[in-house]
Amino acid sequence: MTKSTTDKTTALKLASEEDLSERQQKYFRVCEEKLGFVPNVLKAYAFNPVKLQAFMDMYNDLMLGDSGLSKLEREMIAVVVSSVNHCYYCLTAHGASVRQLSGRPELGEQMVMNYRAAPLDARRKAMLDFACKLTAEPAAIEEADREALRAHAFSDRDIWDIAAVASFFNMSNRMAAAVDMRPNDDYHAMARQG
Amino acid sequence: MTKSTTDKTTALKLASEEDLSERQQKYFRVCEEKLGFVPNVLKAYAFNPVKLQAFMDMYNDLMLGDSGLSKLEREMIAVVVSSVNHCYYCLTAHGASVRQLSGRPELGEQMVMNYRAAPLDARRKAMLDFACKLTAEPAAIEEADREALRAHAFSDRDIWDIAAVASFFNMSNRMAAAVDMRPNDDYHAMARQG
Amino acid sequence: MTKSTTDKTTALKLASEEDLSERQQKYFRVCEEKLGFVPNVLKAYAFNPVKLQAFMDMYNDLMLGDSGLSKLEREMIAVVVSSVNHCYYCLTAHGASVRQLSGRPELGEQMVMNYRAAPLDARRKAMLDFACKLTAEPAAIEEADREALRAHAFSDRDIWDIAAVASFFNMSNRMAAAVDMRPNDDYHAMARQG
Amino acid sequence: MTKSTTDKTTALKLASEEDLSERQQKYFRVCEEKLGFVPNVLKAYAFNPVKLQAFMDMYNDLMLGDSGLSKLEREMIAVVVSSVNHCYYCLTAHGASVRQLSGRPELGEQMVMNYRAAPLDARRKAMLDFACKLTAEPAAIEEADREALRAHAFSDRDIWDIAAVASFFNMSNRMAAAVDMRPNDDYHAMARQG
Amino acid sequence: MTKSTTDKTTALKLASEEDLSERQQKYFRVCEEKLGFVPNVLKAYAFNPVKLQAFMDMYNDLMLGDSGLSKLEREMIAVVVSSVNHCYYCLTAHGASVRQLSGRPELGEQMVMNYRAAPLDARRKAMLDFACKLTAEPAAIEEADREALRAHAFSDRDIWDIAAVASFFNMSNRMAAAVDMRPNDDYHAMARQG
Amino acid sequence: MTKSTTDKTTALKLASEEDLSERQQKYFRVCEEKLGFVPNVLKAYAFNPVKLQAFMDMYNDLMLGDSGLSKLEREMIAVVVSSVNHCYYCLTAHGASVRQLSGRPELGEQMVMNYRAAPLDARRKAMLDFACKLTAEPAAIEEADREALRAHAFSDRDIWDIAAVASFFNMSNRMAAAVDMRPNDDYHAMARQG
Repeated sequence: MTKSTTDKTTALKLASEEDLSERQQKYFRVCEEKLGFVPNVLKAYAFNPVKLQAFMDMYNDLMLGDSGLSKLEREMIAVVVSSVNHCYYCLTAHGASVRQLSGRPELGEQMVMNYRAAPLDARRKAMLDFACKLTAEPAAIEEADREALRAHAFSDRDIWDIAAVASFFNMSNRMAAAVDMRPNDDYHAMARQG
Repeated sequence: MTKSTTDKTTALKLASEEDLSERQQKYFRVCEEKLGFVPNVLKAYAFNPVKLQAFMDMYNDLMLGDSGLSKLEREMIAVVVSSVNHCYYCLTAHGASVRQLSGRPELGEQMVMNYRAAPLDARRKAMLDFACKLTAEPAAIEEADREALRAHAFSDRDIWDIAAVASFFNMSNRMAAAVDMRPNDDYHAMARQG
Repeated sequence: MTKSTTDKTTALKLASEEDLSERQQKYFRVCEEKLGFVPNVLKAYAFNPVKLQAFMDMYNDLMLGDSGLSKLEREMIAVVVSSVNHCYYCLTAHGASVRQLSGRPELGEQMVMNYRAAPLDARRKAMLDFACKLTAEPAAIEEADREALRAHAFSDRDIWDIAAVASFFNMSNRMAAAVDMRPNDDYHAMARQG
Repeated sequence: MTKSTTDKTTALKLASEEDLSERQQKYFRVCEEKLGFVPNVLKAYAFNPVKLQAFMDMYNDLMLGDSGLSKLEREMIAVVVSSVNHCYYCLTAHGASVRQLSGRPELGEQMVMNYRAAPLDARRKAMLDFACKLTAEPAAIEEADREALRAHAFSDRDIWDIAAVASFFNMSNRMAAAVDMRPNDDYHAMARQG
Repeated sequence: MTKSTTDKTTALKLASEEDLSERQQKYFRVCEEKLGFVPNVLKAYAFNPVKLQAFMDMYNDLMLGDSGLSKLEREMIAVVVSSVNHCYYCLTAHGASVRQLSGRPELGEQMVMNYRAAPLDARRKAMLDFACKLTAEPAAIEEADREALRAHAFSDRDIWDIAAVASFFNMSNRMAAAVDMRPNDDYHAMARQG
Repeated sequence: MTKSTTDKTTALKLASEEDLSERQQKYFRVCEEKLGFVPNVLKAYAFNPVKLQAFMDMYNDLMLGDSGLSKLEREMIAVVVSSVNHCYYCLTAHGASVRQLSGRPELGEQMVMNYRAAPLDARRKAMLDFACKLTAEPAAIEEADREALRAHAFSDRDIWDIAAVASFFNMSNRMAAAVDMRPNDDYHAMARQG
């Protein structure tokens, strides 16, 4: 872990409560090798290895596990939710992922700024409309909203996954806002060439 | 998976993807013994034991683990967030917890309906104001909001915990709304006598 | 009137301006006999018998007078409006009425928490959707909203009554919020067993 | 009921359910003599004399009865509430009252359009700020809001009256929106010269 | 320019930075001759003739230039946008224009208070619905919104003009709010007789 | 008009109504030489040279003319307003300007995503808070908001300029949303390296 990335990842001063497990330490080393850095969200949680592990387990299952949704689609949901919530951390980190996975920098920008400006097919538009409504007005979701997804050939398992990713980022956006989580600088320049 | 876990707990039809682990099966049995039922949220996640485990690990750490916040305070945050989001599942289940942990049925109702109507000391009022703002306007959180908590003698670790509980229920509320999660009927009558 | 129920019904200190009329005193005695207590809203208005009478006349006509809507339906509207407005007093008192009139405790809870979670037929759903929109966005009501009610066989007189009950509770919710009106404790435990 | 009361005052077709009482008929004749017309809100309620009486009793006590607030102040509250709710009926009828009672046409317009543009002293500004918050966010009213009024020498009885007038128009605005109540044309030209 | 109209047109103290051009001085003289006064918005911008000219050029093209929309329709859009934004200056000045151009004082009032209360044909209703949505939720405009206008025989050039007028008043409303721009008193009594 | 100006820059089909003036043609050539492209907003307006000129005159005065605000500060305001309004066109074009003028790519991203995440001094924070409130709640601006700017040593002329830039982008954001204006692809990769 280079010094510059260990500076100040949140506005809170939290003493380390326990050492990272060996598995966690290894995970961090793999991040540095593959990404060039450990994402600051992991460092933010690292003061408590139990909390870190719970976060990683849920995140990795949702974003990388089996799903009818592609990894790009899951990242698009993450960014659209974060756009509604104006979350600097998640827009930075997951905007980079959309650019990278799609190979289309402008798609990342459209998800960050306003997904309605993107040239989406009707199925993905419906998926993002659901994520957006679930974020902005969860109390107003009704069976008709689920039916709109089924009409675009999303299975009930797909609906679970759309809901789970959108819900997870409603948690992460708020966690990042609450503690002023700072994204790694490295994200900004990533995948900017189409 | 026992038959009872396949009862209509959500609006989705999800086939069981794998058997619950022995540890999970035991956990369900303990719920039935102690509570008299398995909370439907667990049954809803049970179609996929990996997702169930990730949910349980995060939930149990947040709501039952070490914290400067009492269990009652964590439940109060859960209910106030769920009130802003009008989440039927979480208001039902966690409203019951507030009634039970506090021994004051009206306190549970106040958290469900409008926490500003409750006779709270200034410290708990500040805690719930933060949770409420983080829920309704996450983008507007600033250092001044954290300072308001510190002024009531919340430590930075306490702030993390307030944020983490409030954020978690912003996830759970949306998951419940998205899939129309149904609370167990048993909650309604629980702890209604002060 | 037992002592405990005369304590502090609002945050205002209002001297009694005139004695209650004999008819009003009798009404209060009937409340004590039938309900076991005088609803605090009546005590709150009692500082001025003219205001009390105007409130009672309007309330009794709306909630108990002739109407194509059943008493339960009127109480459901009252609670849904109060849920949008997060009114502790009215949710407590009228939530109890829904539980009592329906014999279904969970229906009262659903009206309090989010009526969209209740298993309603399409006609009652339309009735509550209208009450909810009239509460949240009165300026946006258009002929199409009245037509939606007529399509479910509500007469124009029924529409008047839906509107009148919803409008009345938009008044009462604000009055209760403005003066911090406290509901009688007795409501909390009422009709909790289905 | 005279023919004039059946003119299209709302979007609903409501058959007259009973004759007006003699007292009500006399009241309507006095309106015609003094104002030159019967306000359409009264004609709208006239299909049912019990409802009409309840409305008139509450209205007359609130707007014309004893109060620490002047009649102009009560009309100003009525218009500010109706401005937040964009109520065509009440802005038209009560905007005219503000013009007339104040002798300042521009004051009526300012209440209709945006009370913050009016040259108000701090006390009246506080009164209207309270009415505006009570209208837009009733759930957020707290003791501090009442204290802000007391700091401007409003008594608790004045606070009741501010609250009661603001709450009443939150009812009337919604009733007017729900049934598309049409104001008498006569109001538009009234008191336009300062 | 009479003295009373030169008083205080905004809350800012701005020294004149340059003399008005001859053309601008002539324009002001024409205003006094034709209208009886120079609109205060022009005086507000007059501290800087370059800014004044840019404002006048854009305004005159939009509101008086060639368009498929009538002058009255453009003024109706101006007032509806200003109603959403509660802009005292623009509601006063352009409300007067609607009254004058239409010869129907009540139409001006309806645009100021709530355009949904006006008896509009479906085409104009669609035009104002678009202006209203563009004002309140610009991020949510989609192709379907443009299609709704085309379905009422608005050409793409008409759509540009509807958008341009609505957008311009979203600018002017905010400029007026930011500097507390005061409308000329003369507007209030203009065109009040139908 | 060169062919390039007719490329799909908006969702509208607008026939060229007149040739660009020589001065405008020259301006376009200078853009191509200096920037490498003509900004699409100019091409969008080019169907009508009078509208184009009015737009350019206002834009150039506001963003490039004399002001107590630096060009970077004006661009920061432009982006913060566009972030509230989720305007894809303006966030893309002016986000690039903030990156370029500041030499800090992350500052551009912070303005796009949430300016509260940027390390701003109190004066710039106050400037952007004002722009943000003026965008989201123009009706609520009061003298206290102007005083907050004066307390940070902004002159009344500076306040005019902050207001004028913020107001202008509230117009441009809506124009872009209404016609689905597409930014030039070139912006995405500009100034991405700090």
